[in-house]
Amino acid sequence: MIELRSDNAAGVAPEILAAVQAANTGSALAYGGDDLTADLHDLVRRVFEHPAARVFPVTSGTAANSLSLSAATPPWGAVLCHPTAHIITAEAGATSMFGAGAVMRGIDGAHALIEPDRLRATLESVRWGDPHESQPSVLSLTLPSDLGTLYQPDRVGELAAIARESGLRVHVDGARLANAVAALGCSPADATWRAGVDVVSLGATKNGALSAEAIVTFDDRIAEELVYRTKRSGHVTSKLRFQSAQLIAYLTDGLWLRLARNANQRMAELVTELRALASYGVRLHEDVEANLAFVDLPAPAIDAAAAAGLLFYRMGPTTVRLVTSWQTTRDDVTEAAARFREAVLPG
Amino acid sequence: MIELRSDNAAGVAPEILAAVQAANTGSALAYGGDDLTADLHDLVRRVFEHPAARVFPVTSGTAANSLSLSAATPPWGAVLCHPTAHIITAEAGATSMFGAGAVMRGIDGAHALIEPDRLRATLESVRWGDPHESQPSVLSLTLPSDLGTLYQPDRVGELAAIARESGLRVHVDGARLANAVAALGCSPADATWRAGVDVVSLGATKNGALSAEAIVTFDDRIAEELVYRTKRSGHVTSKLRFQSAQLIAYLTDGLWLRLARNANQRMAELVTELRALASYGVRLHEDVEANLAFVDLPAPAIDAAAAAGLLFYRMGPTTVRLVTSWQTTRDDVTEAAARFREAVLPG
Amino acid sequence: MIELRSDNAAGVAPEILAAVQAANTGSALAYGGDDLTADLHDLVRRVFEHPAARVFPVTSGTAANSLSLSAATPPWGAVLCHPTAHIITAEAGATSMFGAGAVMRGIDGAHALIEPDRLRATLESVRWGDPHESQPSVLSLTLPSDLGTLYQPDRVGELAAIARESGLRVHVDGARLANAVAALGCSPADATWRAGVDVVSLGATKNGALSAEAIVTFDDRIAEELVYRTKRSGHVTSKLRFQSAQLIAYLTDGLWLRLARNANQRMAELVTELRALASYGVRLHEDVEANLAFVDLPAPAIDAAAAAGLLFYRMGPTTVRLVTSWQTTRDDVTEAAARFREAVLPG
Amino acid sequence: MIELRSDNAAGVAPEILAAVQAANTGSALAYGGDDLTADLHDLVRRVFEHPAARVFPVTSGTAANSLSLSAATPPWGAVLCHPTAHIITAEAGATSMFGAGAVMRGIDGAHALIEPDRLRATLESVRWGDPHESQPSVLSLTLPSDLGTLYQPDRVGELAAIARESGLRVHVDGARLANAVAALGCSPADATWRAGVDVVSLGATKNGALSAEAIVTFDDRIAEELVYRTKRSGHVTSKLRFQSAQLIAYLTDGLWLRLARNANQRMAELVTELRALASYGVRLHEDVEANLAFVDLPAPAIDAAAAAGLLFYRMGPTTVRLVTSWQTTRDDVTEAAARFREAVLPG
Repeated sequence: MIELRSDNAAGVAPEILAAVQAANTGSALAYGGDDLTADLHDLVRRVFEHPAARVFPVTSGTAANSLSLSAATPPWGAVLCHPTAHIITAEAGATSMFGAGAVMRGIDGAHALIEPDRLRATLESVRWGDPHESQPSVLSLTLPSDLGTLYQPDRVGELAAIARESGLRVHVDGARLANAVAALGCSPADATWRAGVDVVSLGATKNGALSAEAIVTFDDRIAEELVYRTKRSGHVTSKLRFQSAQLIAYLTDGLWLRLARNANQRMAELVTELRALASYGVRLHEDVEANLAFVDLPAPAIDAAAAAGLLFYRMGPTTVRLVTSWQTTRDDVTEAAARFREAVLPG
Repeated sequence: MIELRSDNAAGVAPEILAAVQAANTGSALAYGGDDLTADLHDLVRRVFEHPAARVFPVTSGTAANSLSLSAATPPWGAVLCHPTAHIITAEAGATSMFGAGAVMRGIDGAHALIEPDRLRATLESVRWGDPHESQPSVLSLTLPSDLGTLYQPDRVGELAAIARESGLRVHVDGARLANAVAALGCSPADATWRAGVDVVSLGATKNGALSAEAIVTFDDRIAEELVYRTKRSGHVTSKLRFQSAQLIAYLTDGLWLRLARNANQRMAELVTELRALASYGVRLHEDVEANLAFVDLPAPAIDAAAAAGLLFYRMGPTTVRLVTSWQTTRDDVTEAAARFREAVLPG
Repeated sequence: MIELRSDNAAGVAPEILAAVQAANTGSALAYGGDDLTADLHDLVRRVFEHPAARVFPVTSGTAANSLSLSAATPPWGAVLCHPTAHIITAEAGATSMFGAGAVMRGIDGAHALIEPDRLRATLESVRWGDPHESQPSVLSLTLPSDLGTLYQPDRVGELAAIARESGLRVHVDGARLANAVAALGCSPADATWRAGVDVVSLGATKNGALSAEAIVTFDDRIAEELVYRTKRSGHVTSKLRFQSAQLIAYLTDGLWLRLARNANQRMAELVTELRALASYGVRLHEDVEANLAFVDLPAPAIDAAAAAGLLFYRMGPTTVRLVTSWQTTRDDVTEAAARFREAVLPG
Repeated sequence: MIELRSDNAAGVAPEILAAVQAANTGSALAYGGDDLTADLHDLVRRVFEHPAARVFPVTSGTAANSLSLSAATPPWGAVLCHPTAHIITAEAGATSMFGAGAVMRGIDGAHALIEPDRLRATLESVRWGDPHESQPSVLSLTLPSDLGTLYQPDRVGELAAIARESGLRVHVDGARLANAVAALGCSPADATWRAGVDVVSLGATKNGALSAEAIVTFDDRIAEELVYRTKRSGHVTSKLRFQSAQLIAYLTDGLWLRLARNANQRMAELVTELRALASYGVRLHEDVEANLAFVDLPAPAIDAAAAAGLLFYRMGPTTVRLVTSWQTTRDDVTEAAARFREAVLPG
């Protein structure tokens, strides 16, 4: 079986598991009163080159997204995001629940990326100050998008600037931020606060952690809210040091980017192989830049590939989603490519 | 330093950490679609001797409590609990948030235990069906209580029966359920569903897990709600198998009870030593039955004990809380007792 | 000035004001314990020909919609509605707030009417039982739509049948239900429960009441929830008899339909006049069936019409919304038509 | 039948009904865009002698209380109030619902009045900044209390000062504010903002209005939130001018105080009569200052009084609540006193 369903299905990176074990000495104050959590704060400030950044370790991406959004929007606010965004398609209203009735509003754009003109048009059409209408309050960008595409940092900056002109805050859903930063070759700061981002959901679990995500804030009012919002939603684990230990290992010496580069590189290789099958009806949806690809194949070929032991998600009768991870090997790709080839080749 | 602040401050039991490592092989479906989570369901049914029990691993006790309560109460409900209950004193309104405005209502009783007569009187005074008044909907019992005292299983049964007569459901906050079951010498089933309990917050983190708590349900309507409520609150981790692995190790071969027995036994020993200091103004608040004790000491003795390297929480000018854990050793107790003795003995 | 902004801007029908005055005798039990409210229940059952219908008088359409929807959906539900629906465009997330995070999801269709095929396709694409996705739980139809168009009763039935097959409940936003029933020439029962509707927001204020709307239920589980939900949201007035008196007058001897027929008839007359101006750039958006029309005019003509004392809302640079009410007279229409004519005619 | 159940059971004062009729001319912009609502703002500023006061007409006291509290507290806040307060006993969790999980916390005191020392002690025991604990955020005083007792303005000031030192805001539940102001003989300003109050629920319905309550704010941040919170909870009626007309009549030329003085005076007369029956087991709970009294009587006397046509609420086997209103006459009191006398006199 070759795992291409989700990077969520991968295991834990050895460096991270070792850090958990190493943290298991003596006792430590619960709920973040420990030394490792203090160290994590310092580390995040260095990695993001922001002296006032704060970090809130949580245990799921849905928690990171919905809590940070609820801290950035009033209940009568609207969070603007692409219609394919995880927060609108796959979190079952978490943002509306934690946001006390805040809504999400889709703004379309090709390649799963919000287009500046559409954002501008949306904001211009708002009846600002009219309490009949949910007031746009946050722009949420997914980086990379749920289709694996990327905003360049200057595009993040352009969108953030438009949003901020209307008083919105800017959130990045970075469930795979490492994959984006690795692919873009920019600094974490460039991809986020230097481009105008206030708060980031920083994923780690998909990229090798055991159970650790984090909210990173660059705005103290959001951070102050999160102190309370994380705790009262049950999202401060008591032995928080073990989440902090994972995140420290993850962000130390560029491990997060090394792990992400593997995932990206393996996907690039797989994509190259799949493109070679274009004449057999294999078609990539997007220019793949990170570690996800949506691929069209003839329906019988999808069945054949599954029968041959390839694990992937079906997104429609002739579409599959493929995801590589920190754990995917060159051999996995070679083997997967071979099986896809067999599956599409005429008998 | 001797750790007596909280069992939350303890580390991870070696068996549980080993289970996490052992689970780190290959890939597995995320969000509970893995084999370990399936195994956990079977195990919970055996341990609780209930063929329809279901288990929802989460990562904090606040999550376990507030989600299970929100699944058991309508928004206009009132959760009845002792005024000292964690859900009312230390979760910052989590149950009211997840419960869409459900309230908590304290019912008093000596020794941090709800008294049947008071429960009955409360229920008799309710204007049932009158929408002006939050309608009592759940009885939540803390086992052991936040003062370390215990309901006997027949008392749980008596309270549950009174509650059920008025249509309430029954919840047990079992953040330290292992300590209660170990102290009571009963079966988990006797302490819970056989006594009329519908849903349990089953703690594991305080008793040696890395980051794993669970909701165990004996009522399918509650379970059906939890499928959605856990996910949309961000309380289903993506790599859930690593929570499940912890809980499997915890519940296998009685590990949970062995760990709890150590904590209880160490506290019993410490209490014996402290009782011997009664003539120096040392007084236990309650008959200690689990692993917590609230102790009065002269204020200077508290300072002296702290200066001597004892870690504990101050609950008032002349009161401290002491908690032992799976990790507390006989030597810790001997040493702690010696330092307390020194602290209270006249110079 | 001729009022064409909204039927909300109209006054109170004399019959209804007289009923309020007549109700002001003696004292009466508050919160609906009075005789008039009991009479209203009986009357609603007769008018809707449903022996178990129940009525909850409230004081705003937003309350009627969001409370009835919150009683019909679980928090993880999605309310399906047309993207032009008031609940999604003009209630600032009320349904998500009262629904504890339930979301609204638009299903498009020409003429502001949901199309059966699109509804079916939406329901077929749902990952039922997957807690990542808000589960469609209610279909909300606006009757007449916010553009003034109408579902025929058999279309309501067709849509409701599709919805019910997937377990959804069916809600009608009937802020202008009288206008729809009058235009359709059907019975209130045919437009609602006989077509598969479970709960209706029955408007009265736009059509001549002082401050009275109502929720009418045909499903007792929804009604039972509303007993609590209306009260705890502050939507049971203490002197409820004065709301009930308005609704009794409204529904007695067909007053509601007579008032609505006036509004519809006046709009039909106005539309006829406007159609005659087609060669001057005047264009109706929809086939007008109730008392609203959206009309395109040259921008200068809009300014000229406003300057001439016509009151209307501008929906864009070349679009206005016109609404007639129970109070609009034949003279108003004649005069308005004349002024529009003047405004568009070349100098 | 003599009505002593509740001032909610009374009718509408003629001046107020006349104002509603007078307002029914022509058309007017909905949702508060009308002239009467603008006039109301000016009037409230004059009556309360506060140049920045703002007023939000709503249609129930529960709405006024829960919305103003939700605008003044964060979701992790605790509203401090007396355990007898309507917000904690009779609104079914409305404040927790609109407050997204904010809780209410009782602070006791004799005569249904919070005692300064207890308030101070409560605030001193708070773990400020600890997200485990709901953070006290608002002090809510009921004026007059639900037992009919009164805080003197300097006591309001003392309590407000203690609260504000800890950063709390101060709310007054003034469902019967007119009765309090009339009894205290102070100005509305002295009873509220000059004593440190930020926001007031100003009742009118119990005291002669048809269906009108109001929130009056002296803090612009609270007012800004209420713009959105009132609308999205369905608490801005579309024909708001008819609520505004009621409130204008109510506050003009001291009508509200004249109506309240009647209620207070009638209760004072009734109390004098009842005190004369002390030797027959009739006992007043409190020194009555407004228009409510709680009275102990022998159980058979309660039955006899009810049988004799007195309408009142039973608060226990030997306790009744009596309430007079703007509508209670001197004859009502004479007659009620005679019947009570007969009921308690030995056969």
